[in-house]
Amino acid sequence: MEIGSMDRYIKSLIKEAGHRIRNSFLTDIVVQSKADANDLVTNIDKDIEQFFISRIRKDFPGHRVFGEEGFGDTIEDLEGIVWLLDPIDGTMNFVHQKRNFAISLGVYQDGVGKLGYIYDVMNDDLYHAIHQGGAYYNDEQLNPLPETDIATSIIAMNATWAGPNRYVDHEGTIRLIRDVRGVRSYGSAALELAYLASGRVDAYISMRLSPWDIAGGMVLVKEVGGLATNFSGQDANLLEQDTFVAANSSIHQKLLTDYLRKK
Amino acid sequence: MEIGSMDRYIKSLIKEAGHRIRNSFLTDIVVQSKADANDLVTNIDKDIEQFFISRIRKDFPGHRVFGEEGFGDTIEDLEGIVWLLDPIDGTMNFVHQKRNFAISLGVYQDGVGKLGYIYDVMNDDLYHAIHQGGAYYNDEQLNPLPETDIATSIIAMNATWAGPNRYVDHEGTIRLIRDVRGVRSYGSAALELAYLASGRVDAYISMRLSPWDIAGGMVLVKEVGGLATNFSGQDANLLEQDTFVAANSSIHQKLLTDYLRKK
Repeated sequence: MEIGSMDRYIKSLIKEAGHRIRNSFLTDIVVQSKADANDLVTNIDKDIEQFFISRIRKDFPGHRVFGEEGFGDTIEDLEGIVWLLDPIDGTMNFVHQKRNFAISLGVYQDGVGKLGYIYDVMNDDLYHAIHQGGAYYNDEQLNPLPETDIATSIIAMNATWAGPNRYVDHEGTIRLIRDVRGVRSYGSAALELAYLASGRVDAYISMRLSPWDIAGGMVLVKEVGGLATNFSGQDANLLEQDTFVAANSSIHQKLLTDYLRKK
Repeated sequence: MEIGSMDRYIKSLIKEAGHRIRNSFLTDIVVQSKADANDLVTNIDKDIEQFFISRIRKDFPGHRVFGEEGFGDTIEDLEGIVWLLDPIDGTMNFVHQKRNFAISLGVYQDGVGKLGYIYDVMNDDLYHAIHQGGAYYNDEQLNPLPETDIATSIIAMNATWAGPNRYVDHEGTIRLIRDVRGVRSYGSAALELAYLASGRVDAYISMRLSPWDIAGGMVLVKEVGGLATNFSGQDANLLEQDTFVAANSSIHQKLLTDYLRKK
């Protein structure tokens, strides 16, 4: 693939999708639950995924698409070119706040992240990265992540993980919350990765993320020198749900060894 | 006081202060710690408080000012007209993120909140309310808060309060986190109250807030039918630090009785 022209194509596609999402607030939004009562999906999530997929199939017929809402391909490996798409990451925010959600898209070639996009739709803020070509916030190049220590770090993590849960020893997360400078939670994995890539938080931690939540953000985070793995320190899983920690390189290992003990 | 002209005066003053804060990013910001290592203050917090106080003293010589940085009056009662000011609420965000902080201002007459302002400086978003005159987001009137039940509510609360702490039985907060639809944390009490007043979250809870953190937001929240008390259900404390819960009226009592057990 010719990376520069794909980048221009994708930016244009994402902006058009964002326009459609903003327009959707003029119409009725139908909210349903998926896996559990708080796992929301709307007709707009589905419409936007189908919009992306129809364009990608027409313009890139050899590529495969792995999308949250299931209109894409069944993906069991990352051979060739795979687009990993979340049409609306942060659907709960979309429904309750009408803001703080994002389009998340990563394009991978044989498992290597080549292009990553996170579009904060309501703020019209685009974060993007090109493998070995830099990461950008509205076309302004982002700096390499600063080194921090735990005591001066701000981490993004949901309060859910401070209580007993099936994924992680919560005594470790409680200790982490006590040791860091601050904890934030914005309700969109994609936006939280964009905030990490742009230096507003120093780590993002979640016990349960899907490939489309992290695919775009991982390209961004790696391009500014950050690390992204599961809690065992392995490459973040792009085929199924897994634990996830992304951080600047100076605290990533410490988060794994000192605080995040997988059950 | 003539409320309409004071409202116009204050809006203009806040916008000028916001301009000064945005300009401060062009210069060096000096960061210090206050009560503990993570309780930050900068030269800009101090400059902005002094800016407000000099203007208020000149133009409203009979009024008193209660400000976070201590340049105002010593306040031991709320007689007469008192301005409660936080020049930068969310100083940690100001320092680390250069966004997600606010100017917070409430004007009280004999203990009654007459005017409330929360200015999201970087987004140029002004939330304000006039006692019995409505609450507004950028001059668009806000609706009365919707009724919710706990299971469909989004609450703003820091993850800190899910671990053992001196203020509240954390088993209760962990249960709350499990029972609600979602938990968010933005790192600025003023902004979180503005988000409550504008319906983006359904409650805001903190174990330790100061009068200037909540004075402006309380006018907003009450004007859209919300309730704001300490954990004992008493009027929120405007003279000293206290626990704090603000919510729509359909869940406020349930938060107090079922979840927030003060130690």
